[in-house]
Amino acid sequence: MPDFAAPITRLIDELKRLPGIGQKTAQRLAFHLLRSGPEDALALAEAIRDAKQKIHECSVCNNITDVDPCLYCSSATRNRKTICVVEEPNNIFAVEKTRQYSGLYHVLGGALAPLQGVGPEQLKIKSLIERLKNGAVEEIIIATNPTAEGEATAAYLSKLIKPLGIRVTRIGVGIPVGSELEYADEITMLKAMEGRRDL
Amino acid sequence: MPDFAAPITRLIDELKRLPGIGQKTAQRLAFHLLRSGPEDALALAEAIRDAKQKIHECSVCNNITDVDPCLYCSSATRNRKTICVVEEPNNIFAVEKTRQYSGLYHVLGGALAPLQGVGPEQLKIKSLIERLKNGAVEEIIIATNPTAEGEATAAYLSKLIKPLGIRVTRIGVGIPVGSELEYADEITMLKAMEGRRDL
Repeated sequence: MPDFAAPITRLIDELKRLPGIGQKTAQRLAFHLLRSGPEDALALAEAIRDAKQKIHECSVCNNITDVDPCLYCSSATRNRKTICVVEEPNNIFAVEKTRQYSGLYHVLGGALAPLQGVGPEQLKIKSLIERLKNGAVEEIIIATNPTAEGEATAAYLSKLIKPLGIRVTRIGVGIPVGSELEYADEITMLKAMEGRRDL
Repeated sequence: MPDFAAPITRLIDELKRLPGIGQKTAQRLAFHLLRSGPEDALALAEAIRDAKQKIHECSVCNNITDVDPCLYCSSATRNRKTICVVEEPNNIFAVEKTRQYSGLYHVLGGALAPLQGVGPEQLKIKSLIERLKNGAVEEIIIATNPTAEGEATAAYLSKLIKPLGIRVTRIGVGIPVGSELEYADEITMLKAMEGRRDL
């Protein structure tokens, strides 16, 4: 491999650590940054630094936020009877995009994965249970990923929360809208059949 | 579009300005940076800042470098009878990967594109001609992209340099027309170097 100047190599190496960025893309991004105006590249460096400094976890729901509590938890207009449980902060974005959900959120910080050493204590489950104690919450929507870990987490939470007399629901699994049956894997197809509703 | 906290939005916006990075990828990268350890994200910010500060153009060949002249221009082992002319600094990487070329380079900083206002004065052509005046250079290999602009630039340079009694060659078979050097694999690039023709 030919040598780049050390600062370029370092920049490429750091870019390669980002998800989905390989050697070629990292090189392309690095050369783009070096070619662009000094303000542009430094604006990115500053944005990273700034976000890392100002963004922290919401003390209520663990969403990432620059205020505490976060905008959902402190909102006067959100429905406080429903909490949607997700694995990661960015999953909130997927739910918000529907524009149909107006309840609160709770971010677990992952999903149960005993083999990777992630048990209930590693997730923000205790604080979720705490939030249910005032009796205001009537429904928990579990929106963990439909993976083995996400399903295990959903089952675990359901067993924990249902005895408190709170309704526990799980997001539907099936063929994505706009997709075709031809491209669905067996498991998704099976789940779609299982989740069929009367018309 | 749901709202992220301002520092997150700013980070996503800055990431979106990178080539090939859309809204979804920018979000994924931003959330990755926010989730990763503070050292990791700050290391990237610092690498960008550091590279922008230390990297400048070589005063001889216009390659980007942290020393002046660059490692190619100052090398005691490179063949000083040949100069390979490329559009952008990262194109040097594609040629170096072949491990067959040991001459010097000259970076034009683009290709002729009259409609975009890029004429000979906007490219580093004058300094290339200056480099030929001492009579040491015997061959110019034109390795501009095999695009309309790159070919026009090759033809222009050929007309300019041949009267000086210097052999002018063009990289040949191998690179798919309409593609760019940046995406060529080593073998294709090697064939292109071997198959160069007199202009």
